[in-house]
Amino acid sequence: MRLRSTIDFLLYDWLKTEELNSRPRFADHSRQTFDAVMDICERIAREKYAPFNRTVDTQEPQFDGEKVILPECTYEARKAFAESGMLSAAQDYEIGGMQLPYTVEAAANCFFAAASISIGSNMLTSGNANAILVHGTEMQKQVFAANEFNGRWAGTMCLSEPQAGSSLSDITTRAEADGQGFEDDPLGPRYRLKGNKMWISSGDHELTENIVHLVLAKIPGADGKFIPGVKGISLFIVPKKLVDTEGRLTGERNDVALAGLNHKLGWRGTTNTLLNFGEGKYPVRGGAGALGYLVGKPGEGLKCMFHMMNEARISIGMAASMLGLAGYYASLEYAQNRPQGRPIGEGGKDASKPQSRIIEHADVKRMLLAQKAYGEGALALNLYCARLVDEQYTGSPEAAGQAKLLLEVLTPVAKSWPSEFCLEANSLAIQIHGGYGYTRDFAVEQYWRDNRLNMIHEGTHGIQAMDLLGRKVVMDGGKGLQLLAGRINASIERAMGRAQLSAYANHLAKALAEVGAATKSAWATGNPQEALANAVPYMQAFGHMVLAWTWLDVALALLDKDEELAIAAHKGGIAAMRYFFHYELPKIGGWLQVVKSRDMTCAQMREEEF
Amino acid sequence: MRLRSTIDFLLYDWLKTEELNSRPRFADHSRQTFDAVMDICERIAREKYAPFNRTVDTQEPQFDGEKVILPECTYEARKAFAESGMLSAAQDYEIGGMQLPYTVEAAANCFFAAASISIGSNMLTSGNANAILVHGTEMQKQVFAANEFNGRWAGTMCLSEPQAGSSLSDITTRAEADGQGFEDDPLGPRYRLKGNKMWISSGDHELTENIVHLVLAKIPGADGKFIPGVKGISLFIVPKKLVDTEGRLTGERNDVALAGLNHKLGWRGTTNTLLNFGEGKYPVRGGAGALGYLVGKPGEGLKCMFHMMNEARISIGMAASMLGLAGYYASLEYAQNRPQGRPIGEGGKDASKPQSRIIEHADVKRMLLAQKAYGEGALALNLYCARLVDEQYTGSPEAAGQAKLLLEVLTPVAKSWPSEFCLEANSLAIQIHGGYGYTRDFAVEQYWRDNRLNMIHEGTHGIQAMDLLGRKVVMDGGKGLQLLAGRINASIERAMGRAQLSAYANHLAKALAEVGAATKSAWATGNPQEALANAVPYMQAFGHMVLAWTWLDVALALLDKDEELAIAAHKGGIAAMRYFFHYELPKIGGWLQVVKSRDMTCAQMREEEF
Repeated sequence: MRLRSTIDFLLYDWLKTEELNSRPRFADHSRQTFDAVMDICERIAREKYAPFNRTVDTQEPQFDGEKVILPECTYEARKAFAESGMLSAAQDYEIGGMQLPYTVEAAANCFFAAASISIGSNMLTSGNANAILVHGTEMQKQVFAANEFNGRWAGTMCLSEPQAGSSLSDITTRAEADGQGFEDDPLGPRYRLKGNKMWISSGDHELTENIVHLVLAKIPGADGKFIPGVKGISLFIVPKKLVDTEGRLTGERNDVALAGLNHKLGWRGTTNTLLNFGEGKYPVRGGAGALGYLVGKPGEGLKCMFHMMNEARISIGMAASMLGLAGYYASLEYAQNRPQGRPIGEGGKDASKPQSRIIEHADVKRMLLAQKAYGEGALALNLYCARLVDEQYTGSPEAAGQAKLLLEVLTPVAKSWPSEFCLEANSLAIQIHGGYGYTRDFAVEQYWRDNRLNMIHEGTHGIQAMDLLGRKVVMDGGKGLQLLAGRINASIERAMGRAQLSAYANHLAKALAEVGAATKSAWATGNPQEALANAVPYMQAFGHMVLAWTWLDVALALLDKDEELAIAAHKGGIAAMRYFFHYELPKIGGWLQVVKSRDMTCAQMREEEF
Repeated sequence: MRLRSTIDFLLYDWLKTEELNSRPRFADHSRQTFDAVMDICERIAREKYAPFNRTVDTQEPQFDGEKVILPECTYEARKAFAESGMLSAAQDYEIGGMQLPYTVEAAANCFFAAASISIGSNMLTSGNANAILVHGTEMQKQVFAANEFNGRWAGTMCLSEPQAGSSLSDITTRAEADGQGFEDDPLGPRYRLKGNKMWISSGDHELTENIVHLVLAKIPGADGKFIPGVKGISLFIVPKKLVDTEGRLTGERNDVALAGLNHKLGWRGTTNTLLNFGEGKYPVRGGAGALGYLVGKPGEGLKCMFHMMNEARISIGMAASMLGLAGYYASLEYAQNRPQGRPIGEGGKDASKPQSRIIEHADVKRMLLAQKAYGEGALALNLYCARLVDEQYTGSPEAAGQAKLLLEVLTPVAKSWPSEFCLEANSLAIQIHGGYGYTRDFAVEQYWRDNRLNMIHEGTHGIQAMDLLGRKVVMDGGKGLQLLAGRINASIERAMGRAQLSAYANHLAKALAEVGAATKSAWATGNPQEALANAVPYMQAFGHMVLAWTWLDVALALLDKDEELAIAAHKGGIAAMRYFFHYELPKIGGWLQVVKSRDMTCAQMREEEF
């Protein structure tokens, strides 16, 4: 309920999502159809996800040597999700989609993420099918993408290898043409793949009839050697079970073998696997290697795979935000019901009085308000980014171009900021529970464990920071940063006209100037080693500035709707904004100090000095 | 090895612990005897603790309805620890102790904490026996304390109750005189106890022949009612099995029943229990209630129990520090061996070159140096506090008085700072491991889970902060704070004379002034509700200032020993100091802002606004 009303406000009052319905693609939609989708998702999440969040944590995936065993609830959740149509919510009608705005799809998916982040891993299936849709042949779309969108099959993204985690240029999975006529296969040019893929989410299971692996691999040159770097990488569809051009299983198993399950700190509802391609466990059609069909052109694999990267990163930011809010709601409820001690002040120490509920303690309120400011702020930022995705695809050429550029700059923040600060929110949720929070009888410790993944997958914190400071804020002479500054200044200007917000507008203007100056100082020598030595502190400061802007802009919408703040929830939103400006924004000075001075204390450490 | 040399430097070169040997109590000791103790502890920790740290995490304590089941390694570790004599290391010779300085005892215990924090819980046994030693009768000392120190029995501290976690004035465990002649029992005035105790570490097990519970309970007045508040609390020895005046088991079980084990996020090697006293499961001597023997005077229970509080809190600070360093060592080793990517700069992006080890990446170095600065700094601070404990008990009257006062001010920091920032260190250790760090195949995720407890037990973060800002820095007109400022200024003055340190001395002087000013501003209105509304941000800033001082003072010792910094480890120590001043100390401005302005944003939140 609380999450729904927060989302409704952000979606309709802040982002004016209804206005999208004036665009041809969304012409059939209205607030009613959006609400109906949200209702369904909220209900499925409540009935099929939330009650089993602890179940999937304690009943981790098992591998019996042949098959992966998952608890029954995972099957039920997957079935309900697939039947809801959410796998293709934003797709064209002609491929069975609903042509929903991505903003609404992202918002509706929040309910699942908040209820049980790891029971579903449907984001990967959608992302996989989307990549095929954009880069695949008509046949590949019909056979593979369509059967993923309709829920028959699931999809994976096979990028990392044991020796090449974040460094994709170092993958060694090999793809060789599968004999004479390999190019004439109706499913696409046919190759034989050999190699090992690590960290593959949902890499094996019996949830669906088949699994469509999208695999990055290298096609060797005539000399048998790989082209070094990412340019040598191509993309392949490698189905777990072979299929014909009608999308029917042929009855042949492809040579993709589960080599092992990773046993994780959290996020245990999703299998995470090491897969061996073409090692010979399931020899196929008398040759060596798993059969794979080329998607797009040879050497353009990374480009094809990363087409959906912004959306994937927004999904992670959203996952982190939802875990943050789940912890907030849980600790709020606990604080409202747990009696303990007495607040400071008049008669507070009078032990003959009954104990107070802990929500009456100032420090508990601080920990609650911090969670609210982190979680709702992160949600708002990610919805804003989702809205930019819609703009990029359906806006006027100018608006689309701006949206694309803004997304480039904001995506690293939308992914990394929630993964850091909503993790901190989860820690505060534990703290509010005291000793109980440290037990597995309460949900909050699991949120904290689940959330710890988000700084790691889909590009680590360090990689996001290098992307932000090394590429995004400097590309095209800083065009993206200028565009963002323009949007921020527009909010500042509006806020200046509001007595309740003008002081905050000034603070934000100062923060924006500080971040701008630090960006310049970081690059003052033009030496990337110096500029990027403190990319993570830069990203932390940049992120806090962006979140302060987000909160100020949300506050404008709150006052637009309810100037007197007669509704308690709106007053609370303003309080969260104030919290962010009073308690959080002042932190940017500390982070930027080392950026501005191009501090090399860390970078110059020699190994033997540690 | 690395931990040993760090401890050796801090103990001998920085804290001059050898000088204690000139005092009568430690006259038999020398660096040789200290080193011998450290050798033994290091070996036992390596052989009996470290190999089983994951075992105790996966083989959690089980309760079969009668007995607690623990893995065999726990018995072995307990046996080796007890045989080492460390349970009574700092005690008098006459009670079987070694009369070691507490500083050395604390340092030697580091090895166990770093190897496996939860396999042993010996701190509680020592603390229990110590409290009896100070407040018990001769008979209680001989029967109970002596048999804990010699390893025969274990001890617990039973404070919390399900309805009264941090709020001890609200406990309801009742103690009533056990009939006629109750005062004449040679083991102490005999009472019957009834009540439930929660969060009792090592509350039940078969590791030792007997368990000595120290229980806080209330003796009702003639009207059957309790005196409200903490003044009504008394302390009792309640053995699990009854004993005679010779310390022999009488064969009777006392009415202390294990009601359940808590299933925790981490720290799983130690049982954590809910105990029922006097519920009738084991009726004893025909009466109702568990038999307990009063320790000290009625109504002085909290005073007796809290006698050892400073030491207990230093132990927690040390535990957090050791987990921080364990993660540091693990991630350092990983970073030295894991090839991945190529550093920025000349030819760095040339994918035809072999991958670099990740320790060559600037951001990995940053995460390593942060861990080093957090972990070694926290260790230094806690050893400094341990040294103050020795001063308090064996120094000149003036020195002892000062040490006592300094400990009052520093203990909340020594406990809370490592529990917050060494937890952050553990998160960085996971981050360095990437996806591997998120699996249970590596040690770091367990360190992170184990460390999360330390902000909760022995007084939560919020309670430490209220203690610091509400009591410690203002008591006696701020005498403690002034004394600390004097010590800090002495370090500043020395550092001013060193070219390599003078700039840092200036930074620290500024930080000290800022903290002092914020303390005044917080209390400017004299209203505790306003002053303490931001006690936690105050404690964070105060802690960072104290740690900056600690590092500056350690840096002085490093330069005293090796002015040229010819030894790489010493150079690394100076780098950690620089890291702390460049990256961490600037953060205090952000924290202090709300303290200085007595910001009530959080405190004034109304429940319905969340």
